[in-house]
Amino acid sequence: MRRLAFPFAFILASFSALCFVPAQAGLSPDSTSGTDAGFVNTLMPQPAQLSTQLSTQPSAQQGRLAVTPSFAATADKFRDARLDAAIGRSLDRIKAQIAISIPASPALDNAPAALLVTVEGAGEAIQSSDEDESYSLEVTATGAHLSAATVVGAMHGLATLEQLVQSDATGSFISAVSIQDAPRFRWRGLMIDCARHFISIEVLKHALDGMAAVKLNVFHWHLSEDQGFRIESKAFPKLTEMGSDGLFYTQEQAREIVAYARDRGIRVVPEFDMPGHTSAWFVGYPDLASAPGPFHIERKFGVFDPVMDPTRESTYKFLDTFIGEMAAIFPDHFLHIGGDENNGVEWKGNPRIQDFMREHNLKDTAALQNYFNQHLLKILEKHGKRMIGWDEILTPDLPKDIMVQSWRGFDSLATGARNGYRGILSAGYYLNLMSTAAAHYAVDPLPANSDLSPEQQALILGGEACMWEEQTSSRSIDSRIWPRTAAIAERLWSARNVTDVDDMYRRLAVESLRLESLGLTHISHEEASLRELSGTQKIESLQVFASVLEPVTFDQRAHMQHANQLTPLDQFVDALVPDPPSRHNFELLAHAYVQNPAAHKEDEAKLAATFKTWIAAEPEVLRLMANAPRLAQAQPRAEQLTDLGALGLEAISYLSSGRPADAGWKAAKLAVLDDAEKPQALVRFTVIKPLRDLVNAVPDPSNN
Amino acid sequence: MRRLAFPFAFILASFSALCFVPAQAGLSPDSTSGTDAGFVNTLMPQPAQLSTQLSTQPSAQQGRLAVTPSFAATADKFRDARLDAAIGRSLDRIKAQIAISIPASPALDNAPAALLVTVEGAGEAIQSSDEDESYSLEVTATGAHLSAATVVGAMHGLATLEQLVQSDATGSFISAVSIQDAPRFRWRGLMIDCARHFISIEVLKHALDGMAAVKLNVFHWHLSEDQGFRIESKAFPKLTEMGSDGLFYTQEQAREIVAYARDRGIRVVPEFDMPGHTSAWFVGYPDLASAPGPFHIERKFGVFDPVMDPTRESTYKFLDTFIGEMAAIFPDHFLHIGGDENNGVEWKGNPRIQDFMREHNLKDTAALQNYFNQHLLKILEKHGKRMIGWDEILTPDLPKDIMVQSWRGFDSLATGARNGYRGILSAGYYLNLMSTAAAHYAVDPLPANSDLSPEQQALILGGEACMWEEQTSSRSIDSRIWPRTAAIAERLWSARNVTDVDDMYRRLAVESLRLESLGLTHISHEEASLRELSGTQKIESLQVFASVLEPVTFDQRAHMQHANQLTPLDQFVDALVPDPPSRHNFELLAHAYVQNPAAHKEDEAKLAATFKTWIAAEPEVLRLMANAPRLAQAQPRAEQLTDLGALGLEAISYLSSGRPADAGWKAAKLAVLDDAEKPQALVRFTVIKPLRDLVNAVPDPSNN
Repeated sequence: MRRLAFPFAFILASFSALCFVPAQAGLSPDSTSGTDAGFVNTLMPQPAQLSTQLSTQPSAQQGRLAVTPSFAATADKFRDARLDAAIGRSLDRIKAQIAISIPASPALDNAPAALLVTVEGAGEAIQSSDEDESYSLEVTATGAHLSAATVVGAMHGLATLEQLVQSDATGSFISAVSIQDAPRFRWRGLMIDCARHFISIEVLKHALDGMAAVKLNVFHWHLSEDQGFRIESKAFPKLTEMGSDGLFYTQEQAREIVAYARDRGIRVVPEFDMPGHTSAWFVGYPDLASAPGPFHIERKFGVFDPVMDPTRESTYKFLDTFIGEMAAIFPDHFLHIGGDENNGVEWKGNPRIQDFMREHNLKDTAALQNYFNQHLLKILEKHGKRMIGWDEILTPDLPKDIMVQSWRGFDSLATGARNGYRGILSAGYYLNLMSTAAAHYAVDPLPANSDLSPEQQALILGGEACMWEEQTSSRSIDSRIWPRTAAIAERLWSARNVTDVDDMYRRLAVESLRLESLGLTHISHEEASLRELSGTQKIESLQVFASVLEPVTFDQRAHMQHANQLTPLDQFVDALVPDPPSRHNFELLAHAYVQNPAAHKEDEAKLAATFKTWIAAEPEVLRLMANAPRLAQAQPRAEQLTDLGALGLEAISYLSSGRPADAGWKAAKLAVLDDAEKPQALVRFTVIKPLRDLVNAVPDPSNN
Repeated sequence: MRRLAFPFAFILASFSALCFVPAQAGLSPDSTSGTDAGFVNTLMPQPAQLSTQLSTQPSAQQGRLAVTPSFAATADKFRDARLDAAIGRSLDRIKAQIAISIPASPALDNAPAALLVTVEGAGEAIQSSDEDESYSLEVTATGAHLSAATVVGAMHGLATLEQLVQSDATGSFISAVSIQDAPRFRWRGLMIDCARHFISIEVLKHALDGMAAVKLNVFHWHLSEDQGFRIESKAFPKLTEMGSDGLFYTQEQAREIVAYARDRGIRVVPEFDMPGHTSAWFVGYPDLASAPGPFHIERKFGVFDPVMDPTRESTYKFLDTFIGEMAAIFPDHFLHIGGDENNGVEWKGNPRIQDFMREHNLKDTAALQNYFNQHLLKILEKHGKRMIGWDEILTPDLPKDIMVQSWRGFDSLATGARNGYRGILSAGYYLNLMSTAAAHYAVDPLPANSDLSPEQQALILGGEACMWEEQTSSRSIDSRIWPRTAAIAERLWSARNVTDVDDMYRRLAVESLRLESLGLTHISHEEASLRELSGTQKIESLQVFASVLEPVTFDQRAHMQHANQLTPLDQFVDALVPDPPSRHNFELLAHAYVQNPAAHKEDEAKLAATFKTWIAAEPEVLRLMANAPRLAQAQPRAEQLTDLGALGLEAISYLSSGRPADAGWKAAKLAVLDDAEKPQALVRFTVIKPLRDLVNAVPDPSNN
């Protein structure tokens, strides 16, 4: 749960004089990563320009602003309720990190305010991608000064300030630092599919807290699908009465989310996927469809035939009313119409629609969908909304103020840009695929080798991480979104050359804990699930087991499980997190060791200890599985733990002594690894590649 | 977060014929605890009567109802939305426990419904302590039949059914069993003080889920205090505008809680503590007070002087309007007026009030408070409410339909009963004191040796666990309420002779995991906090350290910390849980071993392994503390780990060999334990007594 803010922590007292140290020439973030005589750069995303004040300070201690229970703030120019609330939340989170002495009497501590916030104005009444999000932050030993043109910019600066708090044995402090920051991309989003599985309001609020912490600014709310219609319509109540299994957001809840997001500098773009992916609409309103029905909430996943009938005026009349209703709830300039994966089957199979196409000279179903989009566009314009949709909507007939979200990839996005369309990238940022943070981090919406002109490049506004929910529920979603989305957020905010993967993982580990402090359950979910699955609090062996596993890929799981919407998502695979921290840590360790075994005796000892924990865990894991059928699914995996551990111990034994492998050893061990690499029981090992490197590093037997 | 219910899991299909096996003569719960050829009794609270079907079944396997994804329910008599929702939630939770095979297609599995629910009627429109909460549950290999007079009774039966689900290597099942159940006490409550620290709606809903799971039926909502006024009044908006720091419940949220509770068979009794404990009221409405003011939200804790002025008509006019407003939100027949800890100082110090007392022949401040209560009673009656208050309200002038909640103890309660007043016990159930579950479990509202007459005994309606919030926040509250409150819930529901502490702890460990599955964070809170405090995910050593510690008592902490409302509650002590499971487990182990060391070699090995983990943890804990000031508070404790571990190893070395202690050894080790027993750094060791027993069990050196 979220830590609660005490508004009274935000004391608008008079502000003592601050001594501002001018920023040094901007160092690249890379040059300031790691320790720097007191300053440890754990910022995520990395700011555009950062310089430390060390050169002007005789000692690190003097270049520190102490953070005490009296830490307070003043806004000296513009103030509004949104800014006040944001400052209050930040102070609250900063103070939660403070080490206090006992007895403590914070209320009696009357030191002056330490943070001055200078904001020029409120910013846009309806936040858009033109909002000025820049800020600067100057911290000296006597105070911090945050400046921003807008409240949203100030919020980003506050998020940075929170990340700057460090503690050591002398107490809590913020290092003297000068930051000038602005995002590289203006559209930095997270899409959550709340239709295939319903996601609770409470979980969405936590997601918004996490987004704000890493400076994401668009929550794309996927609200309708074949598997469910998730928002109340007063004009068309049967949309949820018959199409949601009772799992939907009231209009009041939707407004609550919009307000909560705006309070955190986040826009809310609702998506109503049309004309396909619409089975759930048709359960209550079959007249919208291109086939006679009856329709049902689709339980399976994939692409289905039901599609809106674009030939009838009644369809547009319905959508006019519906979109008018939604436009009143969602103030954002954009409304997402989906537009993807219409297979055209029902259009081809309906003689009346075929006649219509001939009459209107629409040569194929793509042309008919374009016809539909043109009509939809007019409805959107009537209600003051601009259109955004997936790749498929892009046809030359649409005006240039629409936007494309690319699930197909960079080429599709570039084609749009060459034709003058703005776009954002989502291919490469699909969180449901169970890829690594490093893989997402490597995807750039505007790669250095792009052949787009500067004008065309300016049309690429950013990107969105996408959390599709076929295999995820409210319970596991935090662990699928976080912390990997923080790496994507950095890709979208920070400079193109911020690409050091090891440094990203170093900072991601810190950010992950900060996100947990906000109330996100991406770490605790695994432990709680292992307790539930095993029926005991003694899960140390299961944690060792889980530390070397992650879920198989999305496609592998879909292929292995044939799950539908009713399949429980409380299994062992759901307890595991994608790209667990142990994966990268183990890779680093094995990599350092194989470079030069003789020089890394400490790493060798760590590796040996790790392998022994695997071997020691196996019997206890098997014992727990014997009476826990939900765990027992993974028994074949558990039975490989000892083999892998033994293999590792043998490899370091060879490498430590320098002696060549015995005949046949390598082939046998690589076969073990090949076997262990096969997806099984919905989970896969995270340690195969480093183990393979260890085995391969062992010298081959001599030929004599 | 709560697992989401799929309403479609509740399939109202036709129900196949059930074969009802008649209940055996009621066995006492004690006789059926532990394993019973397949049936493991983990019910909490224990039912009034339970018999297993073993005698009529040739094998355990036949006495099982298989639980599969098609497990469904039918209600064959009365149905309403509340019952449907409760059945849906239960089925959902039952199915979440099922082991599924891969691929799974639950939607394609069309086996008949397995649960028949027969309910006579809706029960009371406004639930009272007269509600019939009884139910019976018959489970055979072919189906389960739940019968109840009311929906609330049925909910209790569903909670029992959920607790009956077991799994073994063959799958998930419910053992054939016959249960006749009804509560021993009619008022089984949990009070949460949301005033000294504000508790979020989300956290309260989880608490209500937990309450329903252990069959508690009254949520006593403590809404006002010197430190804050927590519910919106439209008539008197300054109550929260000036008295809440912005932390309060809207009327809509309050109604949401009332509805959520009713859906779970729980009444909501609001408390507005009067005439004392009212500083926060007076910040906005100083005219209510007996002194001139100005008033402020009280940041400290304790008993304060501000008190309502009982001599002015305007006070009663205010309360009439206010209570009328609250009566419309809270339908319960009772309204709690507090009434405790009025020190009378402001009454004695106000000449006008002194004059009033003389004029009205009120001899002391108690008489004046009685005068106030008489007037308040008329206001409550006008708005259809009965009065409940703390011990202090009890004066012979009040009518017999008021009720007393005793924080003072059983004697006070018994005095009330002798005078014809109904009452409930809270002394002994104060969760904030950091006592053990065993200690609360031993407190009976009606002890066997009570000298009350049967009629007087009938006036003792039950009890309430009290969660006072001086030292607890939304973040740690789950770990302070659960699982200990489950033990109190059993005391209030089950027979007086259900008193086996070891068996209670055995079942409490299971119930604790079930409560975690509901979304409660009482277990995960410690891990998440240790990560936050240490800044790392590698907290194994800290978990070992935490496993032998718990918070000091409430009084010790108050004395050591001098905390106020602004003191952060994110420290090491807040991460720890009271009465951790390791405490009782270690006691059992040490106790078994000292009885006969030679016969318990396995226990000896376990003890030795435990002591070695303490010793091994110390250096790593100290290393983490070096850069984590919030952890470093507990450094003196960490430095005792090795001493305690070494002491334990030495003790079992003596006991194992049977040789007497070396001269001076015992005295030295008992001194170490005396030192370790002193409260320090807000935390205390849980292992001192068993270690003392181990040391004392070592034979003394011979005198020669």
